[in-house]
Amino acid sequence: MKTLRDIGEDALIDRLTALVPRDQNPAAGPGDDCAVVDRDPQSPTLQLLKTDALVESVHFLPSTPARAVGWKAVARVISDFAAMGGHPEYFLVTLALAPETAVAWAEDLYRGIGDCLKVCGGLLAGGETSSVPAGSAAVISIAATGTVRREQLVLRSTGKPGDTLMVTGRLGGSLDGKHLDFTPRLEQVQWLVANYKPTAMMDLSDGLAKDLPRMAKASNCGFIIDEAALPLNPGSTPAQALRDGEDFEMLFAIDAARVPGLLAAWPASFPELALTRIGELVCADEGMSLAGGWDHFAVERQ
Amino acid sequence: MKTLRDIGEDALIDRLTALVPRDQNPAAGPGDDCAVVDRDPQSPTLQLLKTDALVESVHFLPSTPARAVGWKAVARVISDFAAMGGHPEYFLVTLALAPETAVAWAEDLYRGIGDCLKVCGGLLAGGETSSVPAGSAAVISIAATGTVRREQLVLRSTGKPGDTLMVTGRLGGSLDGKHLDFTPRLEQVQWLVANYKPTAMMDLSDGLAKDLPRMAKASNCGFIIDEAALPLNPGSTPAQALRDGEDFEMLFAIDAARVPGLLAAWPASFPELALTRIGELVCADEGMSLAGGWDHFAVERQ
Repeated sequence: MKTLRDIGEDALIDRLTALVPRDQNPAAGPGDDCAVVDRDPQSPTLQLLKTDALVESVHFLPSTPARAVGWKAVARVISDFAAMGGHPEYFLVTLALAPETAVAWAEDLYRGIGDCLKVCGGLLAGGETSSVPAGSAAVISIAATGTVRREQLVLRSTGKPGDTLMVTGRLGGSLDGKHLDFTPRLEQVQWLVANYKPTAMMDLSDGLAKDLPRMAKASNCGFIIDEAALPLNPGSTPAQALRDGEDFEMLFAIDAARVPGLLAAWPASFPELALTRIGELVCADEGMSLAGGWDHFAVERQ
Repeated sequence: MKTLRDIGEDALIDRLTALVPRDQNPAAGPGDDCAVVDRDPQSPTLQLLKTDALVESVHFLPSTPARAVGWKAVARVISDFAAMGGHPEYFLVTLALAPETAVAWAEDLYRGIGDCLKVCGGLLAGGETSSVPAGSAAVISIAATGTVRREQLVLRSTGKPGDTLMVTGRLGGSLDGKHLDFTPRLEQVQWLVANYKPTAMMDLSDGLAKDLPRMAKASNCGFIIDEAALPLNPGSTPAQALRDGEDFEMLFAIDAARVPGLLAAWPASFPELALTRIGELVCADEGMSLAGGWDHFAVERQ
């Protein structure tokens, strides 16, 4: 009997999505950071849809402060809206918790959800609560709608050979704390799409070693990166920058001719956030490969 | 330390939703079957948003066929869209499963999701997969968008004293199988809102004894029901019809003057589905009370 561990997360998703009716004219292919719905060709905006879940003992520990868990649950989703060039709008929160859970824990979780909605923009529209059997992990599932101006939408699949690869911020070591309190790069992306629109973009959730090959494959490209150029969080090694995951920085491709202008203009707008050229997209049959990063169903293979 | 079991599901939701920013002008109050978003006052339609979750050993057994679980997960959400007078559109599916889960199980789950989307209308827009720790219950969380014509929206909160209370179909005993293979009452509700629009409506998910007081309270009414009039599934008692839950029939209030016409017209359109007058809404300080029904965090109190 084949299990999810045997085939891994990406193959599972490919097999499952083939079994159900899908939007025949999606504005973004399956596997992008968000689903993109084009409801009205006359509208200047597109709707973004996203769901994401945090599982106890997988994404957070029983000892993690609930307020930080709530922040993270919402911030992860907002990071995905940012990665498409968009904004968050309405949120639905599904809690599956044991009846023995303290009310104070659930309230702190919601305070964290509220903290992030207030900082990033976004409104609670509804939710659902369910019990889980005794001993089962708590699950917090967030679904949300967002919006993006049609001309500011950035996909994973539209990078071109020769484009420069860049990342915001510093990578690695997120488990030391950043994975709980990061601020989604909404503001930076809004500036980018208005001034130096990337050709392709995604947020780094599973680690560069897993996410960059996804973006390159979606763009039908290969890639080259310069490991020595990777911007490292203090105390992190290049291997950690590639594989730790949960950096929640933006990885993007951009026309190489625009990079000098971008690098010159960036510090005036974001003096405290690094922006680093880490490599380039190349033709699909060229480039290098990377292994590792986070796979939900194959942790022991890392 | 107060736990979720101590306060129950409804009180928990009240406490949590007070902690986060919410839509200040919602087209439906918190606690209706779906959230209703009014994006554009010029638009003839409103957007519906809904999330719902199935938890292993709570909503289905490990031995339940996965295809039936998938059907149920989607059908529950579509039943909520129907309860507002609307239709489903785009679905997001979040799976939290153990790595030891058979790929065939997940594929059957998705086949069931696809079955229901094909029958009821609806498209998969995206999803998310996560692992859960060994021994933890599987969680299937569904989020979806729907749409409703502005003039066909039916809320829980707009019933009036004197309105007749009616239910579609038969109640009780859903655990014998109906909870897994019910067809959401989309078609019937479309006919109702076009011809005999209810003043208030909801779907029966937690049992009439829990759901009717919710609708009456939302409408600032009391209620009277005639237990002898309850339409029973074969083999069910009135107590089961009140308390089993998961009937997924429609409960609605309608102007009493329209009931004779409705009862005369219904059989021609839906000859095989019962439609029964079960009571009426009354003033808030009158009427009766009901106890029981399904509360996720207080099962032992039933």
